[in-house]
Amino acid sequence: MAPKRICLIGAGPSGMSVLFQLEKLRKEGVDVPEVVCYEKQSNWGGLWNYTWRTGNDEHGEPIHGSMYRYLWSNGPKEALEFPDYTFEDHYGRAIPSFPPREVLFDYLQGRWKKMGLKEKINFKTVVRMVTFNEETDKFSVVTENLTERNLTSKIQPTEEFDYVFVASGHYSVPYVPTYPGVDRFPGRVMHSHDFRDACEFKDKRILIVGASYSAEDIALQTIKYGASKVICTYRSKPQGYKWPETIEERPIFTHVDGKVVHFSDGTTAEVDAIMFCTGYLHYYPWIEDKLRLRSVNSLYPPNLYKGIIFTPEGHNGGNNKMLYIGTQDQYYTYTMFDVEALWALKYVLGQIDVPDKKTMRANLIGWAERLKSSKDCYADIDFQTDFVLELAKDCNYLDGVDLDVTKIFYDWHHDKEIDVLSYRDKSFTSKFTGTKSPIHHSTFMSALDDSKECFMATK
Amino acid sequence: MAPKRICLIGAGPSGMSVLFQLEKLRKEGVDVPEVVCYEKQSNWGGLWNYTWRTGNDEHGEPIHGSMYRYLWSNGPKEALEFPDYTFEDHYGRAIPSFPPREVLFDYLQGRWKKMGLKEKINFKTVVRMVTFNEETDKFSVVTENLTERNLTSKIQPTEEFDYVFVASGHYSVPYVPTYPGVDRFPGRVMHSHDFRDACEFKDKRILIVGASYSAEDIALQTIKYGASKVICTYRSKPQGYKWPETIEERPIFTHVDGKVVHFSDGTTAEVDAIMFCTGYLHYYPWIEDKLRLRSVNSLYPPNLYKGIIFTPEGHNGGNNKMLYIGTQDQYYTYTMFDVEALWALKYVLGQIDVPDKKTMRANLIGWAERLKSSKDCYADIDFQTDFVLELAKDCNYLDGVDLDVTKIFYDWHHDKEIDVLSYRDKSFTSKFTGTKSPIHHSTFMSALDDSKECFMATK
Repeated sequence: MAPKRICLIGAGPSGMSVLFQLEKLRKEGVDVPEVVCYEKQSNWGGLWNYTWRTGNDEHGEPIHGSMYRYLWSNGPKEALEFPDYTFEDHYGRAIPSFPPREVLFDYLQGRWKKMGLKEKINFKTVVRMVTFNEETDKFSVVTENLTERNLTSKIQPTEEFDYVFVASGHYSVPYVPTYPGVDRFPGRVMHSHDFRDACEFKDKRILIVGASYSAEDIALQTIKYGASKVICTYRSKPQGYKWPETIEERPIFTHVDGKVVHFSDGTTAEVDAIMFCTGYLHYYPWIEDKLRLRSVNSLYPPNLYKGIIFTPEGHNGGNNKMLYIGTQDQYYTYTMFDVEALWALKYVLGQIDVPDKKTMRANLIGWAERLKSSKDCYADIDFQTDFVLELAKDCNYLDGVDLDVTKIFYDWHHDKEIDVLSYRDKSFTSKFTGTKSPIHHSTFMSALDDSKECFMATK
Repeated sequence: MAPKRICLIGAGPSGMSVLFQLEKLRKEGVDVPEVVCYEKQSNWGGLWNYTWRTGNDEHGEPIHGSMYRYLWSNGPKEALEFPDYTFEDHYGRAIPSFPPREVLFDYLQGRWKKMGLKEKINFKTVVRMVTFNEETDKFSVVTENLTERNLTSKIQPTEEFDYVFVASGHYSVPYVPTYPGVDRFPGRVMHSHDFRDACEFKDKRILIVGASYSAEDIALQTIKYGASKVICTYRSKPQGYKWPETIEERPIFTHVDGKVVHFSDGTTAEVDAIMFCTGYLHYYPWIEDKLRLRSVNSLYPPNLYKGIIFTPEGHNGGNNKMLYIGTQDQYYTYTMFDVEALWALKYVLGQIDVPDKKTMRANLIGWAERLKSSKDCYADIDFQTDFVLELAKDCNYLDGVDLDVTKIFYDWHHDKEIDVLSYRDKSFTSKFTGTKSPIHHSTFMSALDDSKECFMATK
């Protein structure tokens, strides 16, 4: 029998975990399936692969990246650390708990390089269409290889696969609502997807629309780099942090008149820029209807058994062979992706069984119901912990290593509630090395240089 | 025999001319083919349909529009006027020669509304894939209908067509080169595709990369709305206009260091923003290889017989049934699209014959050779005049009306060379009404309000 073929779409942290676990299994002597990985960017790392570009890349493809300069982890590294490749393994010493992007990316790459994964990726290759043929029980995947200025790019012969793993991410295509007057606002109107360098907003007054992670982080960062005022406007409830004087929150705005924003509480304010921090779309235009996940961003997108196997109501959706990796909203990140990757591979290998469709759907609906009744972020953290631990158990991830970092998340969240300006200055203890991380030489709000060199300097 | 089916992609000026000419033929009693028009935007007009959005639209689709606020025609309206629907027909009186966007768009829409064309368009429908089946001699077209937040968007059943008319435009997907240091520039870096409101750049110093129409227009406009300084940087030759003191030209830059731009002549300058006015890509990722035009922007893109029928070397490229409308760079605009539209429809109707492939290729290569030897813009204008006149003759456009506006283009170009700040204050005479246009109540450089209401006011 020919080996099974898997099409893996995306070489960000999720896709790379698939490649990593595959190589690991291969080295352990398992007769692994063939995995063909397509990545539209010219480097691995997904969102961690920073680009200054916005809009379209040099080939005309929409820019994947939503990463901006001066981004520091907004959660402790101890909550995303790999048990089999700790930060101390990578850096040879303990480092502070909230590293900037470059330091995290370097860490990820260390694990990938160790396994020699770069050569496993078809870079600059865009998936144009994924379809499933019921009769042959195979997927057809149309890809296109990009070259300079798009003049000689080539659609490649359609390839056939037994499975498709979608790991293309869901923080790349912005959702941007509209409000009256925004079309005539005399200044920059943008989504955080296009945010790159906070220095642009020096001495500016910014309206930030949204009340989630991007709003919080970009409000702090623009102030840090010189913005004179930030007003965050929320639809349901304020973020509620103890902001510095330069940041305030107001209820949602109703309209803009010139530069003047009118809020629903009757107040007004003049601003120089409007930034929508209004989230992202699950956007898979290259996946045919019957295989396509349709979801808002969620800790449990619908119709995914174990959060992975596409199991829609009514039709077969690829006969349990259409898998999504890393589509959840995240407290857990790298470890969750890693567990999902191993789970998916062991499933393809026949080492994990799935029940009949009715049972699968009852299971996924059960998780969705539980999420619906989740009362606060602590319940959300518990929800995702249980989700990760169940998958880990299913696939015997690292022989049963305990991935539960609930306490770290609780403490982190509590720290933020106490002081949003200094929660990144705290220190956490690695579950896997037992080391309590050192305190960084500079506080987050005073650290303007986000380079690895500066961060790794001992003082 | 079943009527022929044409898939028309795009409802900008080119696509709308196809629909207009089709309705006109139908009213004349011609047994016309069925034309199914797909438009991804929610309104007609292509680039003339201004949106404040940049990046992605509310469905996640890349934004088509490159239109910015306060744009005024950069050529006289007398050079784009339809003989059968003059500006006087539309507005009931003569208006100045260089109208702002809203006035031009209103004019276009008047002609389309008269023919009741809106109902002929499938709005919010994106073409995902066009392929050609040699055996059936038919095209397959996969489309997707967009709805809010992309949660219920549907890929529609694949439709079959005898012909495909691509009128999707080629000023939508930016080409953005890179230069050392741009990735660390502490300010906004953008392409003119994302330029919307010049007020954003009040009191700013801007580096504009490029020396063509966008560079010229945006340099003037940003200064007009308060930018303190614009430096245009050119690769081959400067624009060479008599700029105001606040605009200057320098040779290409080699790198940026912080905010400091280093030019190849050894000079430096500090700037606050970098804008690439570096043009656009012909970008058709949804067209399979063998049907896809590959071209840089050009007055005569390669492999198009009569500038319309895709006639590649080597393979059949859709058996002369893959047509491109409005793919040329433009002196002539609306009238050229209109002539191409009628030519294409008459060709499908069998009223225009094409020779054997060898002759077709010799013809298109002949045009390309002539273009290559074109010495200056005056020769370019002559080139496009001859191109338009030949098509018009082939299809007996409006019983042989004379579309030649060479003299208008010559005069316009001469005016610009004399004074780039005031060429839009000149007046031209309509070839079709004989009326010399009135002088506008405000000079271009003093007219800050670009609304139709303000423009149409008599003083």
